[in-house]
Amino acid sequence: MSTQKPSIPKGTRDFGPEKMAKRNYIFSTIKEVFTRFGFLPLETPSMENISVLTGKYGDEGDQLIFKILNSRLYEAKNKEELKAEFDKGLEKNINSDILTEKALRYDLTVPFARYVVMNRNEITFPFKRYQIQPVWRADRPQKGRYREFYQCDADIVGTDSLLCEAEIVLMVHEVFKKLKIENFALKINNRKILSGITEIIGKPGCETDFCVAIDKLDKIGIEGVLKELREKDFDEKSIELLLPILHLQGDSKEKLEAMKEILASSATGLKGIEEINAVLEKVGLLGLTTSSLEFDLTLARGLSYYTGAIFEVKAIGVQIGSISGGGRYDNLTGVFGLPGVSGVGISFGVDRIYDVMEELNLFPEEHLDSTKILLCYFDEKGQQFGLPLLTKLRAACINSEIYPDVAKIKKQLDYANKKQVTYVGIIGDEEIKAGKVAVKNMVSGEQESLTIDEIIAKLK
Amino acid sequence: MSTQKPSIPKGTRDFGPEKMAKRNYIFSTIKEVFTRFGFLPLETPSMENISVLTGKYGDEGDQLIFKILNSRLYEAKNKEELKAEFDKGLEKNINSDILTEKALRYDLTVPFARYVVMNRNEITFPFKRYQIQPVWRADRPQKGRYREFYQCDADIVGTDSLLCEAEIVLMVHEVFKKLKIENFALKINNRKILSGITEIIGKPGCETDFCVAIDKLDKIGIEGVLKELREKDFDEKSIELLLPILHLQGDSKEKLEAMKEILASSATGLKGIEEINAVLEKVGLLGLTTSSLEFDLTLARGLSYYTGAIFEVKAIGVQIGSISGGGRYDNLTGVFGLPGVSGVGISFGVDRIYDVMEELNLFPEEHLDSTKILLCYFDEKGQQFGLPLLTKLRAACINSEIYPDVAKIKKQLDYANKKQVTYVGIIGDEEIKAGKVAVKNMVSGEQESLTIDEIIAKLK
Repeated sequence: MSTQKPSIPKGTRDFGPEKMAKRNYIFSTIKEVFTRFGFLPLETPSMENISVLTGKYGDEGDQLIFKILNSRLYEAKNKEELKAEFDKGLEKNINSDILTEKALRYDLTVPFARYVVMNRNEITFPFKRYQIQPVWRADRPQKGRYREFYQCDADIVGTDSLLCEAEIVLMVHEVFKKLKIENFALKINNRKILSGITEIIGKPGCETDFCVAIDKLDKIGIEGVLKELREKDFDEKSIELLLPILHLQGDSKEKLEAMKEILASSATGLKGIEEINAVLEKVGLLGLTTSSLEFDLTLARGLSYYTGAIFEVKAIGVQIGSISGGGRYDNLTGVFGLPGVSGVGISFGVDRIYDVMEELNLFPEEHLDSTKILLCYFDEKGQQFGLPLLTKLRAACINSEIYPDVAKIKKQLDYANKKQVTYVGIIGDEEIKAGKVAVKNMVSGEQESLTIDEIIAKLK
Repeated sequence: MSTQKPSIPKGTRDFGPEKMAKRNYIFSTIKEVFTRFGFLPLETPSMENISVLTGKYGDEGDQLIFKILNSRLYEAKNKEELKAEFDKGLEKNINSDILTEKALRYDLTVPFARYVVMNRNEITFPFKRYQIQPVWRADRPQKGRYREFYQCDADIVGTDSLLCEAEIVLMVHEVFKKLKIENFALKINNRKILSGITEIIGKPGCETDFCVAIDKLDKIGIEGVLKELREKDFDEKSIELLLPILHLQGDSKEKLEAMKEILASSATGLKGIEEINAVLEKVGLLGLTTSSLEFDLTLARGLSYYTGAIFEVKAIGVQIGSISGGGRYDNLTGVFGLPGVSGVGISFGVDRIYDVMEELNLFPEEHLDSTKILLCYFDEKGQQFGLPLLTKLRAACINSEIYPDVAKIKKQLDYANKKQVTYVGIIGDEEIKAGKVAVKNMVSGEQESLTIDEIIAKLK
């Protein structure tokens, strides 16, 4: 073992105690809201069989899946076959079962669909589950984009009721209200409207190319989108028809009215408008104003499995991309052999929410769930006196420690300070003689001599 | 997308709502004890650079590390080099940076050491951290052994005080007491004693081979261990000297006395005895009896980084291997360029603890953190009446749902039953007229007509 200068893989992070306290604040807030809305927890393995993942996220997504090398290849008998498969994999994406059969999950939705299909006979539908776990993407790391990051998902499957979309809108508002992120835009669109547009502009069946291009509007601007569409064989006539749609102005209601006219000849497009209107109505009955939800017909979202509503949340005033997103998928379990199960879900990007809260200074006064009292002492005798007291403190459910070494008192107090310990209990010869401890409040500096029972009464 | 019959990788598991509730019971119990003893949370990335992991777990451990294939190999320019490295990797374990530079963590201790070294200037020592995350091992799956499983670790680094060992003993007892696993054996040994034994039997410096063999005593029996030692060039004279040691009888105190005689000529061995005696003394001062800790000189533990105390916990009456284990390591951060940081830790195997509790029926009466009340209705009108009530219930922090579709009441009640919902609130024409809801207790069957304010008062 030679000396190494250690590092962590790019795009990944360590979370020390202070960051954990903040992250746990976000997790527990989201978890509380999910539970209040009737969702129950699920966890799936970090690894999925590659066949479960590929083909679900579009070509671009497939490239970003982290694959796990099969173990003990050096023990295999079919080495020539392995070599041939490896060489083949160097031409396209390596995908041979005998080299790699498992991959890290890319999101929580596909594993959820896989779970639903495998457990369809035990599940009570509609099934409302939440799932809070990391996902991995071999993306280029940058601000707000990590290779390992947590998603917090809530999905309802087994019903196509638009009430579910409305409940998701409410839930998004509740989460961000509790986190005090007040300035955000929750956008909604519907894949059927995007389909309708492709019909209207004479490119029916080209939804995927259309959505992939439109999805980049924020990043590459309208000119960039048009360039990409032209590359995908959208002719000038389609683009001419598309332009006024992309430039539509007005509030959600006005835009929905205008789109109803524009999509008059597309049954699919009109269905999309109708669905959004129904969601808006139910959101109103649930007590939110119409401004709580913004219709944005350029919202597309890259994932190929959405078929109805799509959602996206952006924090206003922070350059970080979307902090939450989701939508309805009608066919996700179909690919696993269970057709006819419609679902809708929302995903909160905890890592970006963290960055937003950090930037806007929204975390509550830091409170590590730290030690309440640290027992300090001068010598072995002090330690011996302290140990039974420590046991009593803990028996009373008080978070407590004793400094592990005989050390200078200053060092022990420094330790307490840096760890944000509230009280120290100093044990000297006098205290031992009196059967007491000198308890000092590390914030106020107040000090008093107390018996263990008095300490417990004070700290409980 | 053709239809697939989905499955999950062997050795991995899904955890649905009921299992999650039980697992969370274990996690939160352990977390509470860790916090009470002054440990703070840390999380590290799932992936580590391979160089961080290899060489820390012995040869057998290295084989079990899951490696991640570098992404976009098909875009690489150096394809001939890639092929050559792959061919080389088929002779030994694939370890070439250009093929795979990241791996899934194998335990939580090595990533922790890596974290300590990278953050040594910000950390306050002694540093007490806990970490609850999954680890991955390419082991052959079997009962109680999974390829993905959670570890719950607590470690103290930056002190060699034996008080830390004693605190760990207390913590183990506290965790299992709270989980009601009363019948367990907590065994302690010391690597210095094992070193001493190798000296005494004329095989100094052969600790690793000796520990690896002894560690299998439970699995392969004394004959198996001797066979393995002979294969590792332990001669008959050494084995003759070893046999009476392996057959030592008596309680911990008697065995420690006997070993003191046997190891009289080994300074290292005697140091090991002295350390165990000191731990026993401090454990006593902390209020546990001597039977809370059993000296077992055949306890070795496979991991190569232990240098002092080693611990292992087995549930008695359940065939499942160890459910907790740990020890002291003096040199773990040394390999990363930071010598002189001694640490000691304990790891709880949640997955095995789960299996033990399941087998012994130790989980408390199941309580999914489920919905308190489900609103049911007969038609659109009922839903419209229900939505504002739902918002009021949730504003009062009551976990509540409304059935998403207009459906037969029986179907809605079935849903409530299966999800262990406590109350249903039925909304019919009469209720709407009276501005009330017919609230039914799903356990007792009692029913009463209540206003929303009355419902909130009742359920809060």
